[in-house]
Amino acid sequence: MLTDIVLDGMGSDRAPEPEIRGAVQAARQFPVRIHLVGPRERLQPALSQYLAQSPGGDRLPIHVVHASEWIGMDEKAAQAVRSKKDSSMRVGLKLVRDGQARGFVTAGNTGAAMATAKMVLGTLEGVDRPSLATVLPNGRGTPCVLLDVGANVDSDPHNLVQSALMGQIYARNVLGVAKPRVGLLSIGEEDSKGNALSRETLPLLRALHGEHLYHFLGNVEGRDLFNGHCDVAVCDGFVGNVALKTIEGLGRMVSDSLKDTLKSTITSQVGALLSRRAFRNFKKKLDPSEFGGAPLLGVRGACIIGHGSSNDCAILNAIRVASEFAEADVNRHIESAMRRVAASTSLEAAPVS
Amino acid sequence: MLTDIVLDGMGSDRAPEPEIRGAVQAARQFPVRIHLVGPRERLQPALSQYLAQSPGGDRLPIHVVHASEWIGMDEKAAQAVRSKKDSSMRVGLKLVRDGQARGFVTAGNTGAAMATAKMVLGTLEGVDRPSLATVLPNGRGTPCVLLDVGANVDSDPHNLVQSALMGQIYARNVLGVAKPRVGLLSIGEEDSKGNALSRETLPLLRALHGEHLYHFLGNVEGRDLFNGHCDVAVCDGFVGNVALKTIEGLGRMVSDSLKDTLKSTITSQVGALLSRRAFRNFKKKLDPSEFGGAPLLGVRGACIIGHGSSNDCAILNAIRVASEFAEADVNRHIESAMRRVAASTSLEAAPVS
Repeated sequence: MLTDIVLDGMGSDRAPEPEIRGAVQAARQFPVRIHLVGPRERLQPALSQYLAQSPGGDRLPIHVVHASEWIGMDEKAAQAVRSKKDSSMRVGLKLVRDGQARGFVTAGNTGAAMATAKMVLGTLEGVDRPSLATVLPNGRGTPCVLLDVGANVDSDPHNLVQSALMGQIYARNVLGVAKPRVGLLSIGEEDSKGNALSRETLPLLRALHGEHLYHFLGNVEGRDLFNGHCDVAVCDGFVGNVALKTIEGLGRMVSDSLKDTLKSTITSQVGALLSRRAFRNFKKKLDPSEFGGAPLLGVRGACIIGHGSSNDCAILNAIRVASEFAEADVNRHIESAMRRVAASTSLEAAPVS
Repeated sequence: MLTDIVLDGMGSDRAPEPEIRGAVQAARQFPVRIHLVGPRERLQPALSQYLAQSPGGDRLPIHVVHASEWIGMDEKAAQAVRSKKDSSMRVGLKLVRDGQARGFVTAGNTGAAMATAKMVLGTLEGVDRPSLATVLPNGRGTPCVLLDVGANVDSDPHNLVQSALMGQIYARNVLGVAKPRVGLLSIGEEDSKGNALSRETLPLLRALHGEHLYHFLGNVEGRDLFNGHCDVAVCDGFVGNVALKTIEGLGRMVSDSLKDTLKSTITSQVGALLSRRAFRNFKKKLDPSEFGGAPLLGVRGACIIGHGSSNDCAILNAIRVASEFAEADVNRHIESAMRRVAASTSLEAAPVS
């Protein structure tokens, strides 16, 4: 049985090449059928040419679904979503909504992808607002799920509680962490540390420890995103997005500086040459694209949003994750967790049967 | 003329050794007189021994000021500040308040240092709340001042405006940036991007562009902290503290992973050996302690808070910065900026003469 995954053919900065190459690799490696969405006149020739060069390519389960428009990286999300009725994102997400596919992958405009997914798919039963998660590698094989990284920029405590539950389910069912340790991202470990939002959220999360959260750590700090101390870190979407972009910026700066440094003298160039394989491993260990992009948790379907700079390997991993997300029934787990929490706490009225 | 600087002798994790060594180096290199504060029975023998080994050490302008207590790194700030009336921080800051010194340096408990400084020194005329700044190196020689990184965890728009003005003055008068470019840290460049606080703050900052802020960039993102795009980035203390600790955590993780990587095979060890000098330059270029710790802006005196892990070089730089801060009359510039803004905007009632 193949899992049907929709891939936005026009998402990444260099689309559609990384998408086509990533789709072909994914179709070879995983039990997936890929629906590549975008302008047929552009995607079909590129796909056919690539498949023709690829041994056995004509038998791979990849086909093009036409969409006449696409949303650019620099377009304003709200406006683009409203005006482009036939965008590759909207057409693709409709396939998921209509049950023709179980997951959607895009490396396009994050704001537009979130808005379109919320509009087309709708939110899961019991979820107030979807939450965007990212998986941060720390070089030790135990990545940390950080959420929300931008879906709700003015979250309330209840949104953070739902993020914690959804993050736990993602860590457990997609990343394979049996009992995820969940922390509330704050500015000190003591309960008294934090801002108004985090201090209000802390007791709500503490109350879920044991029954609904396997292991709630209390407050955690920025350093805990990278030291293996926590598996899931929860924060408001503004804080998470600033943290994520700071991480990306620092990562790029360090990587560029290291390159410059190693080119600075002949001796260090020779040194760099000898360490080449080690550097490659180092880069791979810390490469976020190994974890397949950012899942939008809480919508009706698996929706994975990759970075605009995604290469074929990042696309491959995003397709893998979308398929694992669908196969692991993440959304059924989320709805069931929301029901259980609603029934046992006063956060919401218990559903009347 | 020597500038009198107070140094908390019991601040850093390995106090008082880094403090004593840093003080001796500073007293040799800069026109400063250093008041080393802490328990005399502990500091005096250590200082005398170090000076005795040091050529001409007995003539250096460093002396011990007694304080019977000190605040540990793990103590709760509020409680420690209340209960320890004779802490090295409080005794030291009183010297600044009483005009016996112009600057204070500590590598101790940040929360306790901020609370004690606010209590003992008080805030400058026109400043509502002090703001903690940090200087982020980016390897290009144009560091970025990020503030607030933890003084006000629930800032209002007015606090952010004051932070922007103080950050500009610090960048100009201490870091030597003639016309600092100031940005509001947000989650997208467009004016519509942000949370309730940042969207409310943006027009207030825009209104200061030209007359009170040399160059207001509008919204900036996390990546702009490292790409040389802005000289000053302003945010709420919760967001700034999370960002700072995330940066520190990522920095440590990358540095540890790189070390492990380069030890992983003999070939890469040889490579690392050949690149040793380059790596040292790389580390130095990105070392935040080169910029001398975090200034607490808006209090009556120069107050520089270093990292607990400060070594003698970090202490040396913090002393240099405290002295430059005092000599550049940063606080007079801050008071004058606050007066000018108050007179020209409706943020506050103009002072009646």
